Amino acid sequence: MSEGIRILPVRGLPEVAKGDDLAEMIARVTELADGDVVVVTQKVVSKAEGRLVDLDPEVGHKPLVEAESVRVLRRRGDLVISETAHGFVCANAGVDLSNVAEGTAALLPVAPDRSARRIRDALRHHVGVKVAVVVSDTFGRPWRRGVTDVAIGCSGLKPIIDLRGTSDALGRELQVTEVAIVDELAAAAELVMGKAENVPVAVVRGVDPSWFGEGGVVDDVVRDPSEDLFR
Amino acid sequence: MSEGIRILPVRGLPEVAKGDDLAEMIARVTELADGDVVVVTQKVVSKAEGRLVDLDPEVGHKPLVEAESVRVLRRRGDLVISETAHGFVCANAGVDLSNVAEGTAALLPVAPDRSARRIRDALRHHVGVKVAVVVSDTFGRPWRRGVTDVAIGCSGLKPIIDLRGTSDALGRELQVTEVAIVDELAAAAELVMGKAENVPVAVVRGVDPSWFGEGGVVDDVVRDPSEDLFR
Repeated sequence: MSEGIRILPVRGLPEVAKGDDLAEMIARVTELADGDVVVVTQKVVSKAEGRLVDLDPEVGHKPLVEAESVRVLRRRGDLVISETAHGFVCANAGVDLSNVAEGTAALLPVAPDRSARRIRDALRHHVGVKVAVVVSDTFGRPWRRGVTDVAIGCSGLKPIIDLRGTSDALGRELQVTEVAIVDELAAAAELVMGKAENVPVAVVRGVDPSWFGEGGVVDDVVRDPSEDLFR
Repeated sequence: MSEGIRILPVRGLPEVAKGDDLAEMIARVTELADGDVVVVTQKVVSKAEGRLVDLDPEVGHKPLVEAESVRVLRRRGDLVISETAHGFVCANAGVDLSNVAEGTAALLPVAPDRSARRIRDALRHHVGVKVAVVVSDTFGRPWRRGVTDVAIGCSGLKPIIDLRGTSDALGRELQVTEVAIVDELAAAAELVMGKAENVPVAVVRGVDPSWFGEGGVVDDVVRDPSEDLFR
């Protein structure tokens, strides 16, 4: 069992501020190799991109949630499940108050696939490695308790591997098997992060080389409302 | 970066039939260690438990889907999204036609947490190792394209780690952070499985020892309809 995939936490990243070069910071504390998938949590991407906003102490974060929502799917008490401009459906439109300074909130990156692309390009420039990059965030889901990390952006990776048409182990044609590996990579990375430990980056090493390629989360993973049974 | 988590495919498992001792078969082809999480896909659990049924060639699998559903949430064409007796919401109530002999279908295990428990107990008996066991299945999700693996049963593991009340990296109390690690483990395992490669078992090595404990997917992860905004 020497093969397989490794998930490595990237420790020692300093606090990230607006304008910081995340790729350079990541490269300084970790050794990357061609074929790695670098998973970066939304929080540090948002910080580097200056997506922190001051909260009005009178009204708190609620007007932000409304502003970041293009459609509200459900409300219960203070909880709002809404759709963002990217097409993500999540709590509070991704407006996040944890791990940011009191009185501020972090908004989602404007274009998380582009964020991933910039980090990937910069890593190639700084370190000369060819990696894929995933930007992850923590979402709830209907019907199941607890949150899991999913991808909100990626670059250098096919987000969904289409196994339709490949035959199964018994030689028959598989039915529908479009596996969202980009979300499975985000979930796997979260296992070494831990919310309170300040490990906002992880490296997934040893993935199938055929997964590398073109694609984005917004284009390829967000389900069009017209084909969505729950919107 | 020598620490971290490893995800190891378990290869060489023979075809599984009703009555087979899955734990013994797994132990024969892999070396397990205390603290491992053994992720077993539903398909082989269902086969070992005799949950294969013959399809009536006249009507196919549709009556099975109705029989396995306690509530239908959505229908579109041939697709049925329904709730099973366990409380899982998934396509076709988990009735599965891939990787089983033509003319048969695999139903979900009757009590997947108990299935996991039996495998865990048997592994302790056969090999003397203390592992946790997760039974995984491949589900779609609303709002996002592609399927991912989630847990339908577990034993020896806290399915959800409650980080509410722990302080974040800035020393403030975290809001809601109940992480469904059991689903992230299932998703991570899927990365080394691949639908058509006949790798129905994977080992996740190096997880936080504090995650070991009591709990089940049906009790702890299935969201009660009364607190569910989408049922």
